[in-house]
Amino acid sequence: MTATGVDPNWPHVVIVGAGFAGLATAQRLARAPVRVTVVDRNNYHLFVPLLYQVATAALSPADVAEPIRHVLGRYPNIRVVLGEVAQVDTDARQVALATGETLRYDRLVVATGSTSSYFGHDEWRRYAPACKSIEEARVIRSRVLGAFEEAERDGAADREALMTFVIVGGGPTGVELAGSVAELARYALTSDFRRIRPETAKIILIEGGSRILSAFPDSLATYAERALARLGVQVMTDMPVEAITAEGLTAGGRFIPARTVLWGAGVAPTGAASLLGVVPGPDGRVAVRPDLSVEGLENVYALGDVAACLNEDGKPLPGLAQVAQQQGDYLGKALRAELTGGAAPKPFRFHNRGNAAIIGRHAAIFDFGRFRMKGYPAWMLWAIVHVVLLVNFAQRIRVSLQWLWRYLTYRRGARIITTPYSPPPG
Amino acid sequence: MTATGVDPNWPHVVIVGAGFAGLATAQRLARAPVRVTVVDRNNYHLFVPLLYQVATAALSPADVAEPIRHVLGRYPNIRVVLGEVAQVDTDARQVALATGETLRYDRLVVATGSTSSYFGHDEWRRYAPACKSIEEARVIRSRVLGAFEEAERDGAADREALMTFVIVGGGPTGVELAGSVAELARYALTSDFRRIRPETAKIILIEGGSRILSAFPDSLATYAERALARLGVQVMTDMPVEAITAEGLTAGGRFIPARTVLWGAGVAPTGAASLLGVVPGPDGRVAVRPDLSVEGLENVYALGDVAACLNEDGKPLPGLAQVAQQQGDYLGKALRAELTGGAAPKPFRFHNRGNAAIIGRHAAIFDFGRFRMKGYPAWMLWAIVHVVLLVNFAQRIRVSLQWLWRYLTYRRGARIITTPYSPPPG
Repeated sequence: MTATGVDPNWPHVVIVGAGFAGLATAQRLARAPVRVTVVDRNNYHLFVPLLYQVATAALSPADVAEPIRHVLGRYPNIRVVLGEVAQVDTDARQVALATGETLRYDRLVVATGSTSSYFGHDEWRRYAPACKSIEEARVIRSRVLGAFEEAERDGAADREALMTFVIVGGGPTGVELAGSVAELARYALTSDFRRIRPETAKIILIEGGSRILSAFPDSLATYAERALARLGVQVMTDMPVEAITAEGLTAGGRFIPARTVLWGAGVAPTGAASLLGVVPGPDGRVAVRPDLSVEGLENVYALGDVAACLNEDGKPLPGLAQVAQQQGDYLGKALRAELTGGAAPKPFRFHNRGNAAIIGRHAAIFDFGRFRMKGYPAWMLWAIVHVVLLVNFAQRIRVSLQWLWRYLTYRRGARIITTPYSPPPG
Repeated sequence: MTATGVDPNWPHVVIVGAGFAGLATAQRLARAPVRVTVVDRNNYHLFVPLLYQVATAALSPADVAEPIRHVLGRYPNIRVVLGEVAQVDTDARQVALATGETLRYDRLVVATGSTSSYFGHDEWRRYAPACKSIEEARVIRSRVLGAFEEAERDGAADREALMTFVIVGGGPTGVELAGSVAELARYALTSDFRRIRPETAKIILIEGGSRILSAFPDSLATYAERALARLGVQVMTDMPVEAITAEGLTAGGRFIPARTVLWGAGVAPTGAASLLGVVPGPDGRVAVRPDLSVEGLENVYALGDVAACLNEDGKPLPGLAQVAQQQGDYLGKALRAELTGGAAPKPFRFHNRGNAAIIGRHAAIFDFGRFRMKGYPAWMLWAIVHVVLLVNFAQRIRVSLQWLWRYLTYRRGARIITTPYSPPPG
């Protein structure tokens, strides 16, 4: 044993990815007689469900990101490594990092999450940034605020296209982005300009299918559509995207001139399958057994957005933070029991804590399966839940204060452009 | 008159730069029968005196930056333009922006501030980032936190150089940076790592002259040196810098291996002189008359760091926020009086409100000329003054809360690396 009480002979659990799944796994193994190494590309855990608020200048990056070492540093048996995994050798049971370091493991947990996907049209990425990382959120913020700045210039050509914001994708991400851009334009920026009136900006939400929020019941989706309309967001359904350029977007055979297009449409799991040398399912995810171990491998687990985990009814679980967190809690407890000689765990079972989407101030929808909520009560519940979920106390105070402030004033505290503004490449 | 009550025939004041000087000028002209246009490269006013706290992960960029439109948007007679000045024609009385827009002025106010200067050694810039902009502060944050991350890697070569932080320049900026890096290493990061002990990091403050804080009285500088020593900062004087490379720094004939070198040494005014076509003084600043108008020109004013303004005793005023702000207040009032038919103003007179430097938690120095303060009372006063000075109320709450929180916990809320970490180019 070392001075810190950590025995180098304890079994070693390597966790790749410190998102909701990886972090929960590590926390459940804290202070157990197990060595844990958490590897992540970034030095922070990102609270992705609030990232759209960074993109629309309501919160700062530090409000939704928590240093991983800050969360896990207090546990002597957990080590954090900033790095990327280059290779996994499941026979030799080792992980090679891009820096050259090699980690031998007894159990490997892969929870690398998902990234934005352009359905095979990667050329759209430069014109239509997505909102899955802080860098992307910064690009969106810079494009949106920059478009108003460009439109304000004397003699700005193309003022209408500059004042048109198209959000692609009628899922929760697209709805949240559209609602938040609308609030920015209609409330936060109203007195800021002289040549333009931001509140006249066109905000259009484009959905390829026949209705938005397809994962929610009809009644809630209908409410959301009405709430978006009240905010001045135009919802256009049955409009599959055909092209995106610097000039605008073509969908359903129709061209919409717009200098700012945001992508809230698709996500795809990161390349966990190829890293592990297994064949992914049609959606790119890795098949797992009921205990979340990867099919065809021993001592390797996959959770969160990279895992194709079936619900009791045989349907795959959606890529939600609550699914990832519950899987991490489950696996952490299971590994703790197993590696310290405890009982084998029961299969993982997901408990739906409610699926939410926020349209704007005072307007949200919440689906708990058995019952539903909408409007102000749903918004209040959503706000409370998200504040409580935020990892640390300091953030909880700061974010609630920001919310309170915005609630009272409609202002946006983080409205600075620090990513040099560049219009979409033309 | 237009619907907003602004008459296009009112005289037009163009203000270039929305730092302390430019912003104060504009605010004094608010709601006067004068048209004001404020031009800045950035969409935010930057509270530079707190920027070192962004660089050392204590505050977020949005905590020290305020959207200019947010401050000035409420005044219908003030227009804000995001852009860079390409050319000034003082005969035709017009300013050409890089975007092609041309502004005709009746009065021109140039307050473009200063940037970091490497005393003719621009090749040092890439190895030793300065702290004058948000981008630079982000680079410093990423380098400092990244150096600890690199040192933590298994088999990190060069661990000692990675754990050595050299700050160049014994003025307030260098002292504040050194104190803040020391507090980060000694308090905020202590339990974060497994292979290194951040509290053993070497933090060295290098000064070319014979003592630090040369603008302060001896007794205060001596106190500051003792306070730095208590924080574990090694102060080395009589060490003019001779070379900076990726491996370290050579000063006073001595090589110090260090992977992180920060520049707090020199500033130089931006190129206001060449823009205006006047001959600058030896320090690069523009000579002004007692009413802050530029010598040799009509209807053109220079303030803040670009102006060589003489005090009553014939000495040039230092490049401080309080000088800039007082000049802006003075000129705004003077122009308001002049352009609305009032009395000609008395010459500008600087009122010293105290010169401060902060060494760390509970340790600061304050020089008011007639009397002096140091230690805890000075720190408290500094904190109150800076919180009050911050432009807007929301920031005031947020920053004080952050301070309270750090005060209670020694934590740093903004400890995330979002500028991709790159070691100094080698």
